[in-house]
Amino acid sequence: MSISSKLLVDIHTHVYLPRYTSLLRSRSTVPFIHSITNSEGVAEDRLLILDHEPSGGRPVGSQYWDREEKLKFMDKHGIDVSIVSTANPWLDFLPASQAHTLASELNNDLEEYCATAPAVSSRQIKRLYGFGLLPLVPEIRTSALLDIVKQIGSLPHLRGLIMGSRGIGRGLDDEALEPVWAAIEKAGLVVFLHPHYGVDVSAWGDKDNGHVLPLALGFPFETTTAATRLILSGVFDKFPSLRLLLAHSGGALPALSSRLASCIDHDPIVASRLKHDARYYLGKLYLDAVAYGPEELGFLAPNRSVGSKRILFGTDHPFFPPLSASEKWTSVTENLEAIESVYGWNEDDKNGVRGGNAVSLFNLK
Amino acid sequence: MSISSKLLVDIHTHVYLPRYTSLLRSRSTVPFIHSITNSEGVAEDRLLILDHEPSGGRPVGSQYWDREEKLKFMDKHGIDVSIVSTANPWLDFLPASQAHTLASELNNDLEEYCATAPAVSSRQIKRLYGFGLLPLVPEIRTSALLDIVKQIGSLPHLRGLIMGSRGIGRGLDDEALEPVWAAIEKAGLVVFLHPHYGVDVSAWGDKDNGHVLPLALGFPFETTTAATRLILSGVFDKFPSLRLLLAHSGGALPALSSRLASCIDHDPIVASRLKHDARYYLGKLYLDAVAYGPEELGFLAPNRSVGSKRILFGTDHPFFPPLSASEKWTSVTENLEAIESVYGWNEDDKNGVRGGNAVSLFNLK
Repeated sequence: MSISSKLLVDIHTHVYLPRYTSLLRSRSTVPFIHSITNSEGVAEDRLLILDHEPSGGRPVGSQYWDREEKLKFMDKHGIDVSIVSTANPWLDFLPASQAHTLASELNNDLEEYCATAPAVSSRQIKRLYGFGLLPLVPEIRTSALLDIVKQIGSLPHLRGLIMGSRGIGRGLDDEALEPVWAAIEKAGLVVFLHPHYGVDVSAWGDKDNGHVLPLALGFPFETTTAATRLILSGVFDKFPSLRLLLAHSGGALPALSSRLASCIDHDPIVASRLKHDARYYLGKLYLDAVAYGPEELGFLAPNRSVGSKRILFGTDHPFFPPLSASEKWTSVTENLEAIESVYGWNEDDKNGVRGGNAVSLFNLK
Repeated sequence: MSISSKLLVDIHTHVYLPRYTSLLRSRSTVPFIHSITNSEGVAEDRLLILDHEPSGGRPVGSQYWDREEKLKFMDKHGIDVSIVSTANPWLDFLPASQAHTLASELNNDLEEYCATAPAVSSRQIKRLYGFGLLPLVPEIRTSALLDIVKQIGSLPHLRGLIMGSRGIGRGLDDEALEPVWAAIEKAGLVVFLHPHYGVDVSAWGDKDNGHVLPLALGFPFETTTAATRLILSGVFDKFPSLRLLLAHSGGALPALSSRLASCIDHDPIVASRLKHDARYYLGKLYLDAVAYGPEELGFLAPNRSVGSKRILFGTDHPFFPPLSASEKWTSVTENLEAIESVYGWNEDDKNGVRGGNAVSLFNLK
């Protein structure tokens, strides 16, 4: 076992870079940050990223933008390396030209955020790497998208890019994106597919359940749908080396993959389009280990398609903060305990999920 | 091991009773059955149950309504007993008084369908039992719902009732349904929760993927959402003996249950409402084994909450027919092979899932 396989690497950890935060503060429609006076009479920043959010939005503070806070969080939880990504909703609310410029600037900002971070002690590996951003907005020129793929590929600390499920407005199965997949594959960048919109809010009903339903179900449903639509479009047949990392352990996709295969078998339109059984494509995906339970992770591992080598530790920081400042974050401890407790994983499997798989996937050496 | 634990019992198998079929034929808006001339010039019945279905609807024939066809299907696949339920969409498109009358008539029809069927050879057990129907429509009086629960409880071959996810229009977490849950619990009836509406079709995008996305993803998402909303409403704290059977192996709920528990922990509104961790409620549910793969079934079993004792074989007949008439149905063979191949299940587990669990749950003796 190499030393690097003992690192703890967090591949699902977010930031709103100061340039992006400034933009959010300048806005008064979703997404935006505003200041409110809370119930104790103290001014507090709140973030609204979706229509229909409970009034006022969620509290945000320096842990969302300050690199020192990220490093403190990492130190507190023994995380050696973080591969940081801009949190949703990225850029799709902007006009094309502004999105193009801002993507380029934010990618340079993130490169600097990582490049000027400390290294892992006595190692060549930095403590911070990043996922860049594409200007995925309607009416963007393909050449602008290809420019930014090229930029990300040229920035040494960016090892992939994060994207939502809508592409340039019509989803990830839009044929207009094929040159982009080709360029991403060629550049060897990892695509981190992350939800934002969830599903139609009418599904959640009238009862006040806070954020539980959109976060616990809406997010995974969105990721599952987007990844399934990509599979059905044949993108993985056309771009077999494309590396796609799914947030939140792939949502519901692993648990529904045999049902998906059966439904495809009964639908000649789709069956004739694809070279392989649906589960073959599942086996080409990477999944984060943000599942909060050992059964869920253990399910992924013996599955005929997804082994422990394709599962990577993540925290979702700075979302899901602890209720008291002194506590460790349960979003971290539960996910680490889950990895430790998976029935049937040996130490190599666990070390891989904690960091070794990320070292390989993102070529951290 | 008792002899009855060797029976093969199909708890997910549908019928459109002749009285219901007549209603569908008399209609010209969804849901309805109409006759078209197919591409070979032959008249063919087609069923449309949802807006936005690919034009013409799906072919239907006598296997949807003829009891002899059900028994032939059972014989061909070695199924001893079927617990038959009306297929979706049930009655929610009707005015309240018509739905009330029709529910009562259809329950009597289904009782006769079962009571006049042959018995399992040299046994007291009949080959057919049923799930009744409630008139779950907006503006129905609670007393009408309670009348029908009482009727179903009094019909000896009906052992439960099937329902969709909308209740009387506002979902299953509607407080107006609490007297109904109380009556169902008291009558000892099993509630079979089955999807129909899926999710907002805009999630599926523009590409023609036939029925794959609504069936493979929309159905499980709907069931997952409805069961989660029931859990969050506290219904299982109020009615701890309520027995709920989820279609399609509970959709995505088992795979998302730890995520759900984590999101609840971070949302005091919900956390303070519930007596237990989300996974406790998952452990009270029954799931069919209509998952099409051993990994998916095996995942349910070691899960801290759902053991093999709560999983029951099903076929989804007469949906997903084979492409050639002589073939066995892959929807049956795949689900049987899945049960046979689950890593870690012994013969008792497998016999339980194939029939023993159903014998207990539905008291088939």
